[in-house]
Amino acid sequence: MKVAIMGFGVVGSGVAEVLTNNAAVIKENSDVSLELSHILDIRDFPDNPFSSYMTKDFNDILHDDDTAIVVETMGGTEPAFTFVSACLRAGKHVVTSNKELVANKGYDLLEIARAHNVNFLFEAAVGGGIPIIRPISRCLAGNRISRIAGILNGTTNFILTKMIVEQMSFADALRLAQEKGYAEKDPTADVEGIDACRKICILASLAFGCHVYPQGVFTEGITKLTLDDVANAESIGRVIKLIAQTTRLDNGKISVLVSPALVKKESLLAGVSGVFNACLVTGDAVGDVLMVGQGAGKEATASAVVGDVIDCAANHETRKVFGWGDTKDGLVEDIAAVPAAFLIRAADVDCAAVARALPGCTFLADTADALLFTTPTLPQGEILTALQNAKATVLSAIRFFD
Amino acid sequence: MKVAIMGFGVVGSGVAEVLTNNAAVIKENSDVSLELSHILDIRDFPDNPFSSYMTKDFNDILHDDDTAIVVETMGGTEPAFTFVSACLRAGKHVVTSNKELVANKGYDLLEIARAHNVNFLFEAAVGGGIPIIRPISRCLAGNRISRIAGILNGTTNFILTKMIVEQMSFADALRLAQEKGYAEKDPTADVEGIDACRKICILASLAFGCHVYPQGVFTEGITKLTLDDVANAESIGRVIKLIAQTTRLDNGKISVLVSPALVKKESLLAGVSGVFNACLVTGDAVGDVLMVGQGAGKEATASAVVGDVIDCAANHETRKVFGWGDTKDGLVEDIAAVPAAFLIRAADVDCAAVARALPGCTFLADTADALLFTTPTLPQGEILTALQNAKATVLSAIRFFD
Repeated sequence: MKVAIMGFGVVGSGVAEVLTNNAAVIKENSDVSLELSHILDIRDFPDNPFSSYMTKDFNDILHDDDTAIVVETMGGTEPAFTFVSACLRAGKHVVTSNKELVANKGYDLLEIARAHNVNFLFEAAVGGGIPIIRPISRCLAGNRISRIAGILNGTTNFILTKMIVEQMSFADALRLAQEKGYAEKDPTADVEGIDACRKICILASLAFGCHVYPQGVFTEGITKLTLDDVANAESIGRVIKLIAQTTRLDNGKISVLVSPALVKKESLLAGVSGVFNACLVTGDAVGDVLMVGQGAGKEATASAVVGDVIDCAANHETRKVFGWGDTKDGLVEDIAAVPAAFLIRAADVDCAAVARALPGCTFLADTADALLFTTPTLPQGEILTALQNAKATVLSAIRFFD
Repeated sequence: MKVAIMGFGVVGSGVAEVLTNNAAVIKENSDVSLELSHILDIRDFPDNPFSSYMTKDFNDILHDDDTAIVVETMGGTEPAFTFVSACLRAGKHVVTSNKELVANKGYDLLEIARAHNVNFLFEAAVGGGIPIIRPISRCLAGNRISRIAGILNGTTNFILTKMIVEQMSFADALRLAQEKGYAEKDPTADVEGIDACRKICILASLAFGCHVYPQGVFTEGITKLTLDDVANAESIGRVIKLIAQTTRLDNGKISVLVSPALVKKESLLAGVSGVFNACLVTGDAVGDVLMVGQGAGKEATASAVVGDVIDCAANHETRKVFGWGDTKDGLVEDIAAVPAAFLIRAADVDCAAVARALPGCTFLADTADALLFTTPTLPQGEILTALQNAKATVLSAIRFFD
């Protein structure tokens, strides 16, 4: 069975290596023989061992009838979307690791795949090598899922771990992450939560059956977190993690958000450190299930891509019954209406004023600089409005995660 | 699509409930409509809501052409094996939660399923509701798996957690587990490691491609563990867990064993407490992946069974390329030849004698009662022989897990 790869970056070259180096074990595990046909990239890679497969012309893949499976590891929405749709329309299965593509165009591509009776699989788009998409869509299909919450970005988890364990500042931890190759030169997508947002949108779409687009999703990154926040969290037995979460609400809507959150130190999520990712799924029958592993990295992500390729090859005449429907207006609840409790650090206000504006707060510290307190669980908009009414200057507001 | 259930115990009744209560969400998630046809049990259940489905005659299921999928939740090897083989031969897909059946007869049943082009699935046989089998066989199929290690028995993990956290004795913790319904009246299969052994045999078969039978596997339970052992583990920063593990050895063989083991306190496995189970898989591409959840219980296990039923229904014309080959003589290495390091408590011996017999030991305490020391990593037989030669009375020998 012939496989083409579009995009010879970190993940694409990893896929080429795993397919080649593990050909024997793949044959042994799954009784399929996989062979590279083409690798598409506009760049030149003169000395690489796969140079005989390289092409700059997408048509070499599209019009090659022997290529039954195409791996897309280019990243970005275009030209990936154009290429992937063309491959699906040509009757080729497509496997991708591109979360931006799936978060923005997943529904369209799943529909094209369905119409042409081929598979569009993307286990690698969420959580790198960790099995998440297939466990949720297959193993937990008998469940009514009530929540998915995860540490879905390894770069920010690395930075937060350094801030928590070594009291490193955000800026220093980011610099270290860049030196180690965990963060890009422009780290915006990671540290502002954009990457985690794409991933939770994919999981929300899968769990709740309608495409959830990143545009409408409340997303707060970790750039404003200070060592004061870390210490305040510690003082109440919590650690700060960047949590991407989606929850089924009582009113039939869902919440979707990405933000720093206060996780109990004794919880399993708190123990997920460094570049590791984790995904916690709660279903009515299964209860809590947690999956942990390397959420990024060449080999780990390639492992997930190759798993999907094998699935396509082993069952190549079958289209998976898998995916979700079109987006639905009003499905995602306005963040202001979603209940949460906060740990607040505020200036220009005293306990009495806060207590009047927002009954039920617990006051933890009152220093010259700021007042530290926790709020009751209320719609988030109510909490922020009450603090505005009390004329408080909110220095930091971090959600509790339970 | 019609589904029959054989065995209306805890798991079987849970399956009936999840299929019924979650019919709408199953339809929504997977676009399949599942309907109960028959429930087989020799017992009477006069007042249960499923009484109209009950039958005592297996032929009602076997000869019902409308029943395409059969769930086996009877437990034990017979008559489950006879019934399951007959269903597979009649062209029905079979889903089971019965680890004893899969550990003893998995290869035979997979071969019958293959010959009759139907599926034999058993996600629920290992780790209850936690997705383990499908992630390993599908998502990680591109990997050369080097090790699988898990906390695969919730009863013993509950008992050990009570011993560690509350300094409860083994006998008291077992009594509490029985009161809470976590342990059976005859707890042998759990506390002696037999249940965990069946599960690791299934995982070893899956990972390494040849049926591994429980008979040849070294299995040590937790009945001899004392609070002294717990305290000694604590003194070196470890906790004791019942670990079932299988490892690919350098000589081409594999090790398979179940035993109490010393787990680093800061590791994720150490944080898996109470009745929760966990499975740690190490692959050459993916690195470490950990899956955690409820390893037993009515709804959790039913969730996994129903996931498999949905898979059969959604892809009912397809046989999964999945399973393993026949057993292979000499595949499982003799336990005496498998390397390990131990924490040893021994009497009737002094440091000098141990050091002479077994160079490289580290001595931790020397009291009137016993000598406490750790050994270097060596083939286990060599360590035990050396201690015999030193005429030591070994009071306790617990393996390190790293």
